[in-house]
Amino acid sequence: MRRWTARLLALTVVLGVLAVDAEVRADPLPSWNETTSKAQILSFIDQVTDPASPDYVTPAERIAVFDNDGTLWGEKPFYFQLFFAVDKLKELAEQDPAIVNSPAREAAIAGDFEALFAGGEEALLDVIFASHADISVDDFTADVREWLATARHPVTGRRYDGMVYQPMLELLSALRDNGFSTWIVSGGGIHFIRAFADDVYGIPPEQVIGSTVKTVYEVVDGVPVIMKTPAIGFIDDKAGKPVAIDAHIGRRPIFAGGNSDGDFEMLEYVTSGEGPRFGLLIHHTDAARESAYDRDSSVGRLDRGLDEAGERGWLVVDMAEDWAAIYPGP
Amino acid sequence: MRRWTARLLALTVVLGVLAVDAEVRADPLPSWNETTSKAQILSFIDQVTDPASPDYVTPAERIAVFDNDGTLWGEKPFYFQLFFAVDKLKELAEQDPAIVNSPAREAAIAGDFEALFAGGEEALLDVIFASHADISVDDFTADVREWLATARHPVTGRRYDGMVYQPMLELLSALRDNGFSTWIVSGGGIHFIRAFADDVYGIPPEQVIGSTVKTVYEVVDGVPVIMKTPAIGFIDDKAGKPVAIDAHIGRRPIFAGGNSDGDFEMLEYVTSGEGPRFGLLIHHTDAARESAYDRDSSVGRLDRGLDEAGERGWLVVDMAEDWAAIYPGP
Repeated sequence: MRRWTARLLALTVVLGVLAVDAEVRADPLPSWNETTSKAQILSFIDQVTDPASPDYVTPAERIAVFDNDGTLWGEKPFYFQLFFAVDKLKELAEQDPAIVNSPAREAAIAGDFEALFAGGEEALLDVIFASHADISVDDFTADVREWLATARHPVTGRRYDGMVYQPMLELLSALRDNGFSTWIVSGGGIHFIRAFADDVYGIPPEQVIGSTVKTVYEVVDGVPVIMKTPAIGFIDDKAGKPVAIDAHIGRRPIFAGGNSDGDFEMLEYVTSGEGPRFGLLIHHTDAARESAYDRDSSVGRLDRGLDEAGERGWLVVDMAEDWAAIYPGP
Repeated sequence: MRRWTARLLALTVVLGVLAVDAEVRADPLPSWNETTSKAQILSFIDQVTDPASPDYVTPAERIAVFDNDGTLWGEKPFYFQLFFAVDKLKELAEQDPAIVNSPAREAAIAGDFEALFAGGEEALLDVIFASHADISVDDFTADVREWLATARHPVTGRRYDGMVYQPMLELLSALRDNGFSTWIVSGGGIHFIRAFADDVYGIPPEQVIGSTVKTVYEVVDGVPVIMKTPAIGFIDDKAGKPVAIDAHIGRRPIFAGGNSDGDFEMLEYVTSGEGPRFGLLIHHTDAARESAYDRDSSVGRLDRGLDEAGERGWLVVDMAEDWAAIYPGP
């Protein structure tokens, strides 16, 4: 019985390898133009997955981390999560006008983003906490999903989760098809991203890392829930990203993708490990199809990363040159 | 080519199912006596994995969480991590006697645990930080591994990682063989447990959740590292456990195992979700082979859990009755 089992398992493995081999011969990155960027990515995947390669990496160590805003989906004119916060504040204010109890919330309701931003971080948190605090994680998740299903981006008219980058969806799939685990390490809110990451990116909740508010465990009317509170827990940006990677993953990834200087330390941490490493920066160069910005942008500023990518061996992806498509579908 | 691929994949799946089916007919829990406890566990696994069952759970949602101290390995006469801290303090004091700069550290060096415990949490942290702070995560991990390879438990004479519970190793494997992911949610230190969890339990670093000190990202002599600092980050105990589960996993597990009232909220949270749920408490009843303690123990106190397990439908595992073996090997 045992020998029969072993033979079946061996045959299973062999056939599985053959099937996977035939499958991957199709172009895994059809929305990437045939530039050196695409070639470098595919070469790296080959290098770490070929058992005969001196740079072979076991599947457990094939960990890839990605920023979200500006890397996997858009971030202009400002972070999509802020649109959610403002839309939700308006909805709450209709039910209870008393919630509009500060200049920041008044500015948000009026759509005066200039005035809102002028109030700095304190004003933003005041607006954000209206929808992100004193609510259970389950209810918050439902709110985000309802918003995504109905809200439209003011410039493109698309659903916000329709503004993910098709070439990056393909990269995520290509990595997973080659035994990688794919993670999000975002300055955005962990519960906000988890509400759609599995459906949209194929990334399950446990592989989403983000900024947090403090949460507490409560039994409400006999039902245990996790409540979000109006206090910052952790800011997953800049030097916070490697810290969060250690806390959640506990080993150093071998692949990191970002688009702004908020991702600098993450790429530095990931690409300084031993063995094969890949650092990737999305450079927003495509004013015609998306947006063109870098050193002078308040959202997604990329300055030091551009200066040092060359010497550090990081790939700078030129959206206009390297991508045949931006968004999924027509 | 595509059709050939599809056929190979289909055959692969069929053979895989046959092989797995043959494999699981062997007793997955040989170190569990044939009591109702074992039957309940196996019945639950059947219930959630049988596609024809109304309680079928998809593999992605088959998440099982376990406490560590007293649940997966011993915790007497006190937490093994404290033995590490004291042993390491002695070693550090040999190199630099000036490190013994407090009554707590003096008591620890002298092996006077009564005096050490009398100092409360502050005294314990003072001893623990000597080995757990101002050190990189990589160096700390190496320290733990070196200690595990050489230290011996004062009562059993065993390696500390030889005091894992064989029946629980089998339970972890049985769950994983049935598509579960297995996680540790421990009051112990996250980096301490990660140093051995993969080797000993088959649980990778990213599935270990524990208490933390605050960490920071630093580039030391050009090398980016994560440094542990002498400040408490998060205490993963009691109501902290569901909070940490939400932070790291982001969905409610369906199986939870613990042994003390520190695990109460975790079991409450897990077993209050919809659909099939399993709560398990290890009751240390075996003075002959291990240790017998519950309501009056300072380490691993189990009081409310014993009172409420019945009404909450949690299984209380009686070590003396239910387990044919305690530790692995002879």
